Amino acid sequence: MSIKSIRVCLSPALLPFYDLTDTIAVVIDIFRASSSMCYGLANGARAIIPVAELDECLSYRKNGYLLAAERDGRVVEGFDFGNSPFSYTRDKVEGQTIVLTTTNGTSAIQRCTGAQAVVIGSFLNITALSDWLKRQDSHLLLVCSGWKNQFSLEDTVFAGAAVARLKTTGAILDDAAHAAESLYLEARHNLPAYLSKASHSQRMQHLDIAEDIAFCLQEDVVTVIPIMKGDTLVCLTDAVHTRS
Amino acid sequence: MSIKSIRVCLSPALLPFYDLTDTIAVVIDIFRASSSMCYGLANGARAIIPVAELDECLSYRKNGYLLAAERDGRVVEGFDFGNSPFSYTRDKVEGQTIVLTTTNGTSAIQRCTGAQAVVIGSFLNITALSDWLKRQDSHLLLVCSGWKNQFSLEDTVFAGAAVARLKTTGAILDDAAHAAESLYLEARHNLPAYLSKASHSQRMQHLDIAEDIAFCLQEDVVTVIPIMKGDTLVCLTDAVHTRS
Repeated sequence: MSIKSIRVCLSPALLPFYDLTDTIAVVIDIFRASSSMCYGLANGARAIIPVAELDECLSYRKNGYLLAAERDGRVVEGFDFGNSPFSYTRDKVEGQTIVLTTTNGTSAIQRCTGAQAVVIGSFLNITALSDWLKRQDSHLLLVCSGWKNQFSLEDTVFAGAAVARLKTTGAILDDAAHAAESLYLEARHNLPAYLSKASHSQRMQHLDIAEDIAFCLQEDVVTVIPIMKGDTLVCLTDAVHTRS
Repeated sequence: MSIKSIRVCLSPALLPFYDLTDTIAVVIDIFRASSSMCYGLANGARAIIPVAELDECLSYRKNGYLLAAERDGRVVEGFDFGNSPFSYTRDKVEGQTIVLTTTNGTSAIQRCTGAQAVVIGSFLNITALSDWLKRQDSHLLLVCSGWKNQFSLEDTVFAGAAVARLKTTGAILDDAAHAAESLYLEARHNLPAYLSKASHSQRMQHLDIAEDIAFCLQEDVVTVIPIMKGDTLVCLTDAVHTRS
């Protein structure tokens, strides 16, 4: 039993062109939503509910949930926090349910409807995720959240890191998977330097979140795999509809 | 006067997310539409009319034009030829107007509406094209035609070759331009070997067109730059609405 194929979707806007039948979708938003989701669940958050719109996020206030909203890299006024991983530490999130809306990542998750399973990938959980994926008997689609539907370097380099770990299964790769792996093999010797030319890094420079970027590029800080169960992200062991 | 920015659009489906104001769009479909367009105009074709649909192509029969149609890599029955560059030799096309519809490239051209100019790029005309682009005072968008709206390796590697030649102008690059250049720098030492893993190459293997692929990877076979004038591709020197 092993992965049948590995494809990389370079923008959520391209998702309609992929057949998601019998496919595990891995949603990637390295700076910073998918990193923070992994970190938050590892730190004891009960669940994370990704929603597309600010209004929808606010409607959960009455439930006593933590409300997180990011737009254009900043915390939206009136919300508890945004998508910085340092807002997802154990003292802040343990036992809590978080409702999160972001510019790119939460929208990408919602557009994976039809996949057999939707899980979350980041450098923080890359080994746990790859080891689990290797044991699945499905097609794999690595979904880069990008930036406002455009290509992003950091998400694609992460997809390439996953391809490099998973291609030993003998799975068929599509062109984008080959390209992502090439980029990762060039970048891996110094990820921060390679990604410093990424537009997202440059966009974030003036936001003074260099520490966030450095944090999100660490490998294997956690071992959880966030997975969608209904409309909610939980840790994989809590999920009932996977084949693991 | 020099290029203001260089962006790479990795699929025609992503074109709606780009502002084409003050932008020269370079449409790329290496295997094989953009290569054949360059070769055909260099060999004396009067003009090439790219159309999206087979029916539209057929409607030009009465004008005495050559009708070319490719779908899924093959010549469509009832048409004079497809998109093999060997159908665009001087003995076949000199003095002729060709109406062409292909799976990816002609559709990409038509989706660049709104650009200041739409020109055609291929390895066959890369130096002539790059030298001309360097002198333009516009934004540049390199548009990869891809395969049925998905990423293709050969189109992106060509975009990277163009970025490598043009970045000396000091133009700002987007993430996809950085990535395309990385891929080209890895591929350039042996383009055929690198691209042999591309799905399009593999798709075309059973079509027995290895000679077409080798031909399309040659640099600087021609010096023409096809440019859209109204709904028709002509040689750049014939065009009136450029700044060259």
